[in-house]
Parts: sequence; structure tokens; C-alpha cells
Amino acid sequence: MEIVKIDLGERAYDICVGSKLLSKEDLLVRHISNKNVAIISNETVGPLYLEKLKKGLTKSKSTIDIILKDGEKYKNQESLDFIYETLLKNKYGRDSVLIALGGGVVGDITGYAAATYMRGIDFIQVPTTLLSQVDSSVGGKTGINHALGKNMIGAFYQPKLVIIDVDCLESLPDTELSAGLAEVIKYGLIRDFAFLEWLEKNMDCLINKNSDFLVEAIIRSCKNKAYVVSKDEYETAMGIRATLNLGHTFGHAIETALGYGKWLHGEAVAAGMIMASYMSMIMGFIDDKDFNRVKQIIDSAGLPTNPPDISQEQFLDLMASDKKNKDGKISLILLKELGHAFQTEEYDLKILEKTLNTKTF
Amino acid sequence: MEIVKIDLGERAYDICVGSKLLSKEDLLVRHISNKNVAIISNETVGPLYLEKLKKGLTKSKSTIDIILKDGEKYKNQESLDFIYETLLKNKYGRDSVLIALGGGVVGDITGYAAATYMRGIDFIQVPTTLLSQVDSSVGGKTGINHALGKNMIGAFYQPKLVIIDVDCLESLPDTELSAGLAEVIKYGLIRDFAFLEWLEKNMDCLINKNSDFLVEAIIRSCKNKAYVVSKDEYETAMGIRATLNLGHTFGHAIETALGYGKWLHGEAVAAGMIMASYMSMIMGFIDDKDFNRVKQIIDSAGLPTNPPDISQEQFLDLMASDKKNKDGKISLILLKELGHAFQTEEYDLKILEKTLNTKTF
Repeated sequence: MEIVKIDLGERAYDICVGSKLLSKEDLLVRHISNKNVAIISNETVGPLYLEKLKKGLTKSKSTIDIILKDGEKYKNQESLDFIYETLLKNKYGRDSVLIALGGGVVGDITGYAAATYMRGIDFIQVPTTLLSQVDSSVGGKTGINHALGKNMIGAFYQPKLVIIDVDCLESLPDTELSAGLAEVIKYGLIRDFAFLEWLEKNMDCLINKNSDFLVEAIIRSCKNKAYVVSKDEYETAMGIRATLNLGHTFGHAIETALGYGKWLHGEAVAAGMIMASYMSMIMGFIDDKDFNRVKQIIDSAGLPTNPPDISQEQFLDLMASDKKNKDGKISLILLKELGHAFQTEEYDLKILEKTLNTKTF
Repeated sequence: MEIVKIDLGERAYDICVGSKLLSKEDLLVRHISNKNVAIISNETVGPLYLEKLKKGLTKSKSTIDIILKDGEKYKNQESLDFIYETLLKNKYGRDSVLIALGGGVVGDITGYAAATYMRGIDFIQVPTTLLSQVDSSVGGKTGINHALGKNMIGAFYQPKLVIIDVDCLESLPDTELSAGLAEVIKYGLIRDFAFLEWLEKNMDCLINKNSDFLVEAIIRSCKNKAYVVSKDEYETAMGIRATLNLGHTFGHAIETALGYGKWLHGEAVAAGMIMASYMSMIMGFIDDKDFNRVKQIIDSAGLPTNPPDISQEQFLDLMASDKKNKDGKISLILLKELGHAFQTEEYDLKILEKTLNTKTF
């Protein structure tokens, strides 16, 4: 087992990464001993791992499950109310602990419930998808969707502990593994060229779910995200945290245009990273060899290298309404070189339009 | 105008106290310049002060009102949704500012909306009742009620600025002024004997709404609360912040037993402080002369000195379910002497029962 330390002062916490961690009692005992514990999971993940996790909770005062329906569309006020009500009916007080067992949706909603139940209680993340392990388990973004917008209601709130057991990935569908790899590749592209080279060399082992290589990729991803988050915890306007959005402004437009759920988030981000890299090439920051490396690694992870058929007008409209942008200008994350991303609003609109009109990169 | 500085590190802010502050543009301009501003108020307070406040907002990018219904029962998810929806429909982004114009309910719900809209936006408190000026505007407690419990959903979230204009108190009903004075007296009792003596001397001026004396009482109250909060921002289990609950465990039981709204919060707390002082006397911490001083000052503020008719059983049951207590023990705030409160679970149950059975102190 390896530990990534997240350095956020009084909100510091550990991420434990390894194999066979799920029922490891000594990881959890300090946090749950003699406390009321509620495990939040969903109908898909619960049956797979709930009993295993509970074996590590024998020292709790009480343990209950709260099982949500599976899917992004249940990341809403109704599910949140179900959590609040169950906690209140069980008379869980301020010293209770929530454990999120599942992917990003379960993690986001559990974190938000913890942030707001009785003005804040402890929570622990046990992410079971690659995407949630390398992305949403670091950084403290919690929340739910609103009918008028995704992730509109939420809070920055840090867990007390994150347990990443790579054995959970064995049951993960290949498409979701690939979607997680999109964010893994992103860390290489935005700030860690050595990691990008490691990924180019070892992508086969990751695709084949080799445990040791997955642990290595997850640790390096978490460390990269942890560094960025520790420098800019609350995502200030032109701060470094924005670089984590490489490919995301294009990607969100793709997700919204197709309707959520058609393309996985990671697939949309993959195509978005190609588009951002293409713009970076046209603007002269990277050369065509670099661009082809980006295409190559995304392709080798089983991810799309071209966007779906969306008109330039729709792309521009959706990108402009993305919440990361102010004053009508579309702020983009581009590559200065491989391993170095930056945020900018300074570019020729024609180059963006050319990118949006390219159907095959 | 006087300024009380609230020292919470990166969350530090100022409380400005004085007369004619409501439309003072230079107080607000730094916080609202070129930003989208939403003023949250209610149907009672809005018509009185909204136009005056807007005169200080000419430098904002846009200003909208969100008017809630008046009353504790509207401090709920529905009102919160109304705020979220209005903000989203007006395309208010992360750099927007909320201004709470009203009493504790408006302040709590606005603060919570600010804490959770897009994971946290700025907010400013303009409390218009004495209670909210001396209590809920300091300390960062925000939230809403849940059908299963008061203040169950919330967050600790600090405002960027608090503006206390004592002129707002001119329109405040006498009973609400008295209710606010209960919390003012509390600060004297728990940690500021000199303030208690000042209050004994000047209660008439406060009851008659003398502006200078009100400013002085508010400043000394805010300073006392600010000190306590700065030492224990998140209300740890046996921390100093709990002493702010002097009279509150008795008081909450009174409010719940009668049904919310029958007695004002401050009235219930006043009777509760008498009960806590009585226990402190029976236990030998204070003498009967001290106890009579407590009764006298509470009486002079126009507040009840005896609880309503509630049975011992109901009192004990309601006090035990108060969220401040753990493991079945009822934790109480008592007086070691006038000007010095402490938290304890060590007392003879018979003394508590004797207190609960006393109908006239």
C-alpha cells in the first residue's frame, strides 16, 4: 500500500492506494471507532463491495447503508433528501461518519451531504471507478445537479481519508476504464511529461488491468492533482487549478450537445483534449509530431480521437455558457508544450472555428 | 461608525456598526463593484429598507431582489430552491454577491445559499433585528430547517462584510427588541462582567432605543461573540463556543414544547438563563444575591423570568434530544460566577429535576 498525502493545512488527509484495501480494518478504525457510520452506495456497486467494506467497520457504534439509484440523473436534490432523512430518522448526530462507496456520482453527493448535514460531518471516500479514483477523490469538489445546470449546487469539502482499492477495477467495464484513462493522460499532458512517457510505454498493461501498473498510474495522477489543488484549493479565476480543465470546455459542449450519457465524460474529454492540442499546434506551441503523440496515446487508451458531428454554432454557444467563462470570452486551456498547459483568452477566433469545423484530426 | 474585526485568518471580515450606514456606498463598493448582486429579503423588511440599500449599489453590474415570505417556517428547502432558481435564471455566476437584508431567518438562508451556490459565492449580511445583529451575524452558522429538525441542514460559512445600521431598530417591535436583549445579557453573563454591570446601569436607554447606547451594546456583544468564535470556529465537542448556549438547552425545550413561534427565541432563552442560574446557585457556584441580579436584569429587559408550564418529563425528554448532547447525558452550560460560564455533564440529576419543577423563581 502507498499513501499520497494531501497537504491542505488543517484539512489535510491521506489517500491510500493498493490492493486488498477494502476490508483493511486498521485503515478505517481511527475514523469510525465508536461512531455512527452510514455507507452511501448505489444499486450496482453496493452488492459487489458492501459486505467486504463492512468487515472493516466492526468497531463502529452502528452501521447503516443508504443505497441510491445508479446514474448521473440521480445526483439530485431528491437523493440528497433521502440521505438527510435516513440520517435524521436514525438519530445520527454531528459525530457521525459518511462513507462514499462508488463512482463520482456517489462521491459527489456523499461529500455534499457530509458538508451540509448539521453544518458538516466527517466523510471517507472509497472510489470504485478509475475516473473517481484519479479525479473526483482529490480536490474536495462536492455537489449535486440542478434542473437548470450540472454541479450548480455544491461545496468545497475535504474527506478525512480516501481508500483506493484497485481490485474494484476488476469489475469495471472496459469503456469506463478507458474513460478514467482520459483523466490519467490529462495529468501527463498538463504538467508531467515524464508520466506521459511512462503512459506511452505502459498503456497496454493499464488496459489489461495489471494491478501494479494501475496502482502506479493512480498514485502519479493523484499526486499531480494534489499538487495543483494544494496551490489553488478554491479554483480562483485565473489560478492553476483551471489547467485541470484541459479538454473539458470542448468536452462539456460535446456531452451537452449529445445529451448526457451518450458519451462518457472521459470520452468527451478525450476528444476535447485532441481539439485543444490541435489549436495549440495551429498556434505554433506544439509541432505536428507532438500532436500525433497526443492522438496516439488517446487512441491507445481506447478513446475517441474525433468529436461527434456538432456544428460550429452549437459548439460556440455551449462553450460560451460553460461556467468557467466570464464576460462572453471563452477561456481555454491550451498546451505550451507536452507536459505544460496554460489558461488563455488570447487567441484568434478563426483558429477556434477551424478547430470546431475539423471533423477528422 | 465603529468596526469590529473578526479574526478568522483567510476568512476574516469586518462588522461595521453605526447609524445611517444602510446607503453608505463606500462600505459596499469594494465588494460589489462590477458584480452581479442579489438582495435577499422578506415581505416585511423589503419594503422598509430595500430602496435605501440599493442607493449604495450603483456600482454593481446588475442588482436583483429575491423576496421571501416572512417567518421561521419559510427557512426551508423551498425558499432555498427559489433563491437558486432565480440566480440560475439570471445567469449569475461564481463572482456574484448575495446580500442578506433582514433578521436571522433571512441571514441564515442567504448565507447557506451563498455557501452552496456554485460551491460558494460571496455574501454580505445586513441584519435588521437586534437578535440577528448581536447573534447570527457573527459566527458563520448558516442553514435551513428540515421537517425532522431545526437547523439540521447547513454549513459554516463566513460573510465578507456585516453592516449593522441601528436605525433599522426603530421599526422593530418592542417584544423583538427585548428578545435580542436576551442574547446581549447572555454575553455579560458568560464572559464579560463589566458589560453586565454596564447593562444593569443602562438598560433603560436600550429599551428606549437610544442610538448611542444601542451601538455600544451591539459592539460589545459582537466583540464577545467574535472572541469566542475565533477560538472555536467549528464548535468542537467540549469547546468554548458551547458557552454561547447558556440558557439554550432549556430554551429550545420551551420553544419545542410550546410549538415554535409561541415564545420568541430570546424569551425562551431568557427563562432558560434563569433556570441555568438557579441550578448554578443550588450547586453553590453563585449566591442568591447573584441569582437575583440575573433575574433583575432579565426582568428589566422586558423578558420572562419564569418558564411556561411544562412537565419535568417533557423538559427532560426534549433536552435530551437537543443536538448538543451525546450519549444520553444532558450537557449544560452553568455559571461558575457572574461573567464566567462553563460546560458540564457533572451534576446531581436531582438538582436539575428541582429546577425543572420550579414554576416561580
